Amino acid sequence: MTADSRLLADDLLRFIRDRIPLARAMDLRLHGYGPDGLVLAAPLAPNVNDKGCAFGGSLASLMTLAGWALVELELERRGEDCDVFVGDSHVRYLEPVWEDFHAAARLAEGADFATFFDTLAERGKARIDVRCEVPGRGGRPAATLEARFVAKRRAGAQ
Amino acid sequence: MTADSRLLADDLLRFIRDRIPLARAMDLRLHGYGPDGLVLAAPLAPNVNDKGCAFGGSLASLMTLAGWALVELELERRGEDCDVFVGDSHVRYLEPVWEDFHAAARLAEGADFATFFDTLAERGKARIDVRCEVPGRGGRPAATLEARFVAKRRAGAQ
Repeated sequence: MTADSRLLADDLLRFIRDRIPLARAMDLRLHGYGPDGLVLAAPLAPNVNDKGCAFGGSLASLMTLAGWALVELELERRGEDCDVFVGDSHVRYLEPVWEDFHAAARLAEGADFATFFDTLAERGKARIDVRCEVPGRGGRPAATLEARFVAKRRAGAQ
Repeated sequence: MTADSRLLADDLLRFIRDRIPLARAMDLRLHGYGPDGLVLAAPLAPNVNDKGCAFGGSLASLMTLAGWALVELELERRGEDCDVFVGDSHVRYLEPVWEDFHAAARLAEGADFATFFDTLAERGKARIDVRCEVPGRGGRPAATLEARFVAKRRAGAQ
């Protein structure tokens, strides 16, 4: 991943925090962006629940934003101007999270950006499946998300 | 629904806002609680996304909390002292939400509290399926959630 990609990711995170008040309330941060995917992080304190572990809504929000950002950044890197929406999503809460956490997003098995960009070029609209994971203890995930994202070229875009 | 139930619901909402910072950031409120289920509301402003409509994470969080509160309140009404966790959940984002919104939670088709309390009495642990909906325009839902909640009696509870 180039320095340019990291700059794009930093810019996108700034944009997310500026424009989505809940992302700011969660104190969302960029943890990493590379060929293996995108990782967002959040501290426990603003994301805690009544039991002292991470609130399910915060885990779901962090994973959804990580997936959304993964797709958005790939579009930006290719110069595409699209709106990206989350469609269906399936969250599994597997074990409680008692500390600061992060969510790693990558394409789902069988999904690839080549097909996605071919469809987008043909129809101005395309969908892609993403998988995110919040790592837990002992190498097992504490929470997972499988979600479909839809990108639509903006009116006036190429 | 009795005045007592409404008081329990008001107390639970106060507890949620006190103990879950993200619920406070969302400005979550109780909209109604009755035999048909429980309804939570949230204003658009703190829950907006970069496109000016409701952030998916806010919709998912509101629906998850409405489902959680529905189960928690029924337990409290019966004098049960349990921890309630969300397990699997499936969210469908069907159309954007451009104004203040609410989420209505009720038991899923085929789920009933009688079976749930029988299992809890027998095993100290039980699960129940809930369905939530954020109403959209023209009578169709803007977002839905199907989720499984697990209740476990607290150590020391009856």
